[in-house]
Amino acid sequence: MHDIVWGEIVSKPKVFEKPTGVKDYLPEAVAKLRSIEYEVLQCMERWGYRQIITPTLEYYDTVGAASSTEDRKLFKLLDRNGTTLVLRSDMTAPIARVVSSLLKDEPFPVRLSYHSNVFRAIEEEAGRDSEFFQTGVELVGDASSEADAEVIALAVACLQAAGVRAFKIALGHVGFLNGLLHEMLKGRDGAQAALKECLLNRDYVGYREKLKELKLSNEAQKELEGLLRLRGGEEICRQAQQLTDDPVAQQSILHLCQIWEVLKAYGVSEHVSIDLTMIGDFSYYTGMTFEGYAADLGFPVCSGGRYDNLLKLFGRPAPATGFALKTNRIMEVAGKQPAEAPYRVLIAYDAAHREEAFRAAKEMRARKGMSVETRLIAGAGELHAESLPGGSYRVQGKTYRDVVQFL
Amino acid sequence: MHDIVWGEIVSKPKVFEKPTGVKDYLPEAVAKLRSIEYEVLQCMERWGYRQIITPTLEYYDTVGAASSTEDRKLFKLLDRNGTTLVLRSDMTAPIARVVSSLLKDEPFPVRLSYHSNVFRAIEEEAGRDSEFFQTGVELVGDASSEADAEVIALAVACLQAAGVRAFKIALGHVGFLNGLLHEMLKGRDGAQAALKECLLNRDYVGYREKLKELKLSNEAQKELEGLLRLRGGEEICRQAQQLTDDPVAQQSILHLCQIWEVLKAYGVSEHVSIDLTMIGDFSYYTGMTFEGYAADLGFPVCSGGRYDNLLKLFGRPAPATGFALKTNRIMEVAGKQPAEAPYRVLIAYDAAHREEAFRAAKEMRARKGMSVETRLIAGAGELHAESLPGGSYRVQGKTYRDVVQFL
Repeated sequence: MHDIVWGEIVSKPKVFEKPTGVKDYLPEAVAKLRSIEYEVLQCMERWGYRQIITPTLEYYDTVGAASSTEDRKLFKLLDRNGTTLVLRSDMTAPIARVVSSLLKDEPFPVRLSYHSNVFRAIEEEAGRDSEFFQTGVELVGDASSEADAEVIALAVACLQAAGVRAFKIALGHVGFLNGLLHEMLKGRDGAQAALKECLLNRDYVGYREKLKELKLSNEAQKELEGLLRLRGGEEICRQAQQLTDDPVAQQSILHLCQIWEVLKAYGVSEHVSIDLTMIGDFSYYTGMTFEGYAADLGFPVCSGGRYDNLLKLFGRPAPATGFALKTNRIMEVAGKQPAEAPYRVLIAYDAAHREEAFRAAKEMRARKGMSVETRLIAGAGELHAESLPGGSYRVQGKTYRDVVQFL
Repeated sequence: MHDIVWGEIVSKPKVFEKPTGVKDYLPEAVAKLRSIEYEVLQCMERWGYRQIITPTLEYYDTVGAASSTEDRKLFKLLDRNGTTLVLRSDMTAPIARVVSSLLKDEPFPVRLSYHSNVFRAIEEEAGRDSEFFQTGVELVGDASSEADAEVIALAVACLQAAGVRAFKIALGHVGFLNGLLHEMLKGRDGAQAALKECLLNRDYVGYREKLKELKLSNEAQKELEGLLRLRGGEEICRQAQQLTDDPVAQQSILHLCQIWEVLKAYGVSEHVSIDLTMIGDFSYYTGMTFEGYAADLGFPVCSGGRYDNLLKLFGRPAPATGFALKTNRIMEVAGKQPAEAPYRVLIAYDAAHREEAFRAAKEMRARKGMSVETRLIAGAGELHAESLPGGSYRVQGKTYRDVVQFL
């Protein structure tokens, strides 16, 4: 299809290539990924969350629009009727669709879990994957701080189940931030947006510079600078309450204090710190948001938050909260090794002993943890099994724990 | 985006809709699908097959072209450079790509397994899914009848592991059919294609009519009619050998006889019948092909075959054989119920007893098979638990095996 175009050589994809931004997982990586998937889904099940699967393709006009992924980051294609479809970019919007349609008679609260690949176009330009895995939950139909604390405590349990040893959850509230900025910068939407952009990028130097440019009253400038110090433990709730009179901000802080109380009852508050400078990366968040950071990794390994306005886009208004683990990143930090590698055995046989060999293979395969390959050989001299330290054998470039011959 | 177009109303997708041909799997279906996936992958692992995962998106010019899916059935999209991508339509071509690239130094034979969703456009017009699951293996680098028999015996083991109780494997060989038709209808390519089309559709009446139209010699007509009787057990191999002198057909039958011998040694020949009228539905098949049929289901539940020319398209020529279970169809026939449903418990508590309640929940969740939801209530009167026959409880539309209150 591609050839010389206006003097510029655009070569065909080479046969061994895959598209940029997507990847192959070889057996060892799959074993690790599958182990994390299994442990995390099991954990979610124990907390009463039931798993669902939704299609890879969704309508652009509905789920695509609701998904809060930037339009240019959606993979789009046309169906035969000319309707635009997207590859799902998250699972929250599809689940909102299902809760509002197939599950519309299911009483609230609805607890759902998933493990799924999701897609973001042009991420490869930033060195990120265009297709990656998320494992998450949605708790729909419960507006309480109890529900928010439940998903945070569950995120802690899931990170532990996945084998992430050291991590910290940062907890914020978009209502507090919006209320505070609204109070201090009434009518100056551009200034509010610019400050939020700095916070989203954790660019605190830029934030301070922007603040100076805004030429606010001394008091306002001090309070907005004070925001940057609102990171820490329980005490932050009290400090934040004194910082603002805005009713939305006050309400948000109250909700956050209540979440903290519940987290203490769960015994997980040691894993959590309040960070009121945090903005969730999804535009549909309406309440608390949180991110999980593993030691030694610059990116969050999970993110979540409350989204009370999404469900009504699908015709069943309801408050909701949830999170997604960034499963690929967890693969990088999870200390836990996947379930024990199988005990690999090679059974070699000649044609005269085939039945005997297959019978032995069948018996071994019935035992837990065994993986048995069979191979026809001409005679005793054909198989060169090299002994390895530790009692394994190397046969034609592969390692086996045992080699059995039927000759 | 859509509105009134030339007087014809093309309405927007409704918010609760998903694209046609794709579906949502609710928790009960997911439990069944996941159980089949787990059991089958475990079975493949026991036979020495290691799991891989490849990306959803592949290049149209490489994997798309090699996949043997009709062009109009490929989902296509453009990447930012204008290169055409496809949603994978099977896993055989992607695995051929991986074996030839990432695994190019891995010595043969290479045994790989997968569980994956695959995509076929416009299938919804025939009432079929556009996205569905396949669970399969590829055995690459072994041209022997031993390898062919191994994947057939493994298919039998996998169908049993998936809980398919009654099934039959039909075994054919594209080489025999091609050789016979080539011998009888030398140079008449159109006639050969027309007869193959009838066989592919299992339209034996049409086959006989086409034969008459061709006005062949009595002997040729008799032999080509005789093909239709080449369905049965071991004896078919001998009958087929007498039907043709074509060397390709003879060679094919010899290979099939050898496969049968190995299948007997596996003890699975009772599940297999030879059907020399069978054509595999993939154009890349070069040798034996097989399909598994479950009782009471018109469609095959698995299909496989030998494809010795595919790997060289990716630069590492090698013989290969394999199969895929049609996992969605197996969901319909698998008698096996998914692993026991969890023991669901509701723990209700008031704010004063939150810690106690969470501690109890944590203890219960640590026990195998337990699934525990928690709920804050105002007091003793709030929760209406209706006793059900069998000792369960109904609370606000949901069923629990146990309800515990901390008040």
